[in-house]
Amino acid sequence: MTTDPRSLLRSMFDAAVASAQPCAVVPAHLPEPPKGRLIVIGAGKASGAMARAVEDNYKGALEGLVITRYGYAVPCERIEIVEAAHPVPDEAGQLAAQRIEALVTGLSEDDLVLCLISGGGSALMPAPAKGLTLADKQVINTALLKSGASIGEMNCVRRHLSTLKGGRLAALCHPARVLTLLISDVPADHLPDIASGPTVADESTCADALAIVARYRIQLPASARTLLESGAGETVKPGDPRLARAEIRLISSPQIGLEAAAVVARAADYGVCILGDSIEGEAREVGQVMAGITRQVAVHGQPLQAPCVLLSGGETTVTVRGNGKGGRNVEFLLALGLALKGQAGVYAMAGDTDGVDGLEEIAGALLTPDTLARARVLGLDPAQSLDNNDGHGFFGALGDAVITGPTLTNINDFRAVLIDPAGVTRQNT
Amino acid sequence: MTTDPRSLLRSMFDAAVASAQPCAVVPAHLPEPPKGRLIVIGAGKASGAMARAVEDNYKGALEGLVITRYGYAVPCERIEIVEAAHPVPDEAGQLAAQRIEALVTGLSEDDLVLCLISGGGSALMPAPAKGLTLADKQVINTALLKSGASIGEMNCVRRHLSTLKGGRLAALCHPARVLTLLISDVPADHLPDIASGPTVADESTCADALAIVARYRIQLPASARTLLESGAGETVKPGDPRLARAEIRLISSPQIGLEAAAVVARAADYGVCILGDSIEGEAREVGQVMAGITRQVAVHGQPLQAPCVLLSGGETTVTVRGNGKGGRNVEFLLALGLALKGQAGVYAMAGDTDGVDGLEEIAGALLTPDTLARARVLGLDPAQSLDNNDGHGFFGALGDAVITGPTLTNINDFRAVLIDPAGVTRQNT
Repeated sequence: MTTDPRSLLRSMFDAAVASAQPCAVVPAHLPEPPKGRLIVIGAGKASGAMARAVEDNYKGALEGLVITRYGYAVPCERIEIVEAAHPVPDEAGQLAAQRIEALVTGLSEDDLVLCLISGGGSALMPAPAKGLTLADKQVINTALLKSGASIGEMNCVRRHLSTLKGGRLAALCHPARVLTLLISDVPADHLPDIASGPTVADESTCADALAIVARYRIQLPASARTLLESGAGETVKPGDPRLARAEIRLISSPQIGLEAAAVVARAADYGVCILGDSIEGEAREVGQVMAGITRQVAVHGQPLQAPCVLLSGGETTVTVRGNGKGGRNVEFLLALGLALKGQAGVYAMAGDTDGVDGLEEIAGALLTPDTLARARVLGLDPAQSLDNNDGHGFFGALGDAVITGPTLTNINDFRAVLIDPAGVTRQNT
Repeated sequence: MTTDPRSLLRSMFDAAVASAQPCAVVPAHLPEPPKGRLIVIGAGKASGAMARAVEDNYKGALEGLVITRYGYAVPCERIEIVEAAHPVPDEAGQLAAQRIEALVTGLSEDDLVLCLISGGGSALMPAPAKGLTLADKQVINTALLKSGASIGEMNCVRRHLSTLKGGRLAALCHPARVLTLLISDVPADHLPDIASGPTVADESTCADALAIVARYRIQLPASARTLLESGAGETVKPGDPRLARAEIRLISSPQIGLEAAAVVARAADYGVCILGDSIEGEAREVGQVMAGITRQVAVHGQPLQAPCVLLSGGETTVTVRGNGKGGRNVEFLLALGLALKGQAGVYAMAGDTDGVDGLEEIAGALLTPDTLARARVLGLDPAQSLDNNDGHGFFGALGDAVITGPTLTNINDFRAVLIDPAGVTRQNT
């Protein structure tokens, strides 16, 4: 069997995305109808599709409201789907968050709240803490995204500036039972980080949030600083009795997606090395490290022999310095390509499983052994593109952007490096 | 067998260093005495010990001069050993370089030059190109070391500002035969990068050097800029007839060192994964990526099951922002420790095989699961230490510095992460 490396990489990405489709993974986790009411709430890029999967498969009466990203709504009949902005929150999200708050207030012990959470829920369900405005949260979110802080660090700050995050939504539901179905898009599936953990107890503190703000020199509005310094932004801590009836189930995750991609690679006779489902770090540096591991495969057959694929997930970081059209995955690919210098037989694909890498409606891109040569022909300088954070401009010009449209799910980034020097030799002869 | 992880990591490091000891690896490569004279020259941290190994084992007459770092000389009888400064060159190095130049000028076809090259040779044998002063080279070297440029990029600039580098020393030896024995300390054993390749043809150009200078915004003295812009700094290119009788042999390398460490780990029943002999990138980011791979081993048993060791070599980069006592390896360890947050059963060691990490006379350090806890007791903030590039201050205060003294060889950095959660459980019960 001859497999085109580009098609194989794309199939692996598609398999990872498919493993996290709500219609496939939600039904098995639906609860028995409760004695009282079933209220469906939630927020995230996958939460519209999760709501649809609930409606299609749940046997009892239900009502509810779920927030998803603009363009991510799917037709529902009984659960209202509200669209809002991501990654910087807007008023639509704030109004919907207030309605969710109202929906779960005053419930009884017989009621059950089914909470459908997925990545992006943090921005989509903005609930500024007392004294903060939505504008404040927008300013803070923009500053966080540009700061170079990791996703875990950004979420720690966000959790302490909200009335719903860090377990406070579940506390509001009390005394009703709460069942949360989670599609994880965060490093190590750390539950308080998924959509800033609205139904999950949180060990981090206002002091932790302040330390992060100081470390990355983030300019906070005075009201936000006061909130953190006074401790008024504190989250719900483990052991809190209001969370005694809150259950969490992880139904999709980066690791499950990587394993699905590995099945595709193995079927095409490639060895597979999963390096991590939660690789973090500055995207361009992660690209350099991955180039080092790629060289080791090619030169020394370690950690495994070619032909093989190196897989990794998790969320890298981009410290924005330029004004190009960028994203974590294309930034990673540019750095990888520069470090590999057109190494024969090495292909790569990196993309965000939600279909959106950065602010562009592009999932990611493909790198081939001749990417640099083709760029030169077009007069593109990859080092300059990288310095300008212009990954989408670069790969778009080459025709190597990967465009999926909204995938309606999100298990974070997907990176695959395919190393097959012999395959290239075959193609050349 | 119970093995203390700290001792095991240290034994692995020692095995890597031992694999590159000149007395062990030089003798097998000594030439038969030539018809004419044998001239021994060279420069590098290992070159004094290499000269000693030549004297002890070569059967014919010889003479020569070799430059090594202050404190790295070993007693020799027939080969003169000159000590000079590293990493910023000094006048002692420059005078010795001029004497080497004189030694190899005017040789005949019957003569043989034995050139003993190892890491550090670039700074130790400064030969400013026409129009440049030693002070210029010092300024340039200091700027390069602080710029964030990779070792390959730094060497590309250096090669084009010298009269001996980039193959020009071998060209001077012409028509004599030249045999170069190399101990590699550079990524992928790229020959023009080892001591800036004085006997190796070089494909890079003045234009490449200028692009690097522009990219990292390095301030060049006007004379250096003129040299690059006029093309007068051009190196000797592949195919140049003056290099037809120049032979290169790689006798020690990072990969050979990692394999030696792997033998030690396997003997103690640890699995081994060699991730790369030439991992590059900003040290703190490499630490974060390594933490991600470590989590994957601990949580998912990938890329291999614990107990195991992740090994890597190569040279990371530190962009200096603080004024602490830093080095690449302790910077890596600090970032790794911060990302792992005291993860049970994870130990690490990182060090420079030459015994000197950065400007401190400390080889590296050890990280243990309780490093962060012990630091807190001492009032040390690891995040602050990292921001201040104060790795040596941090690990020194904890008593976890690894001090070897000069090892008299150099196969670049050595990093090992040992993951053994069960071992910790056993110790705790």
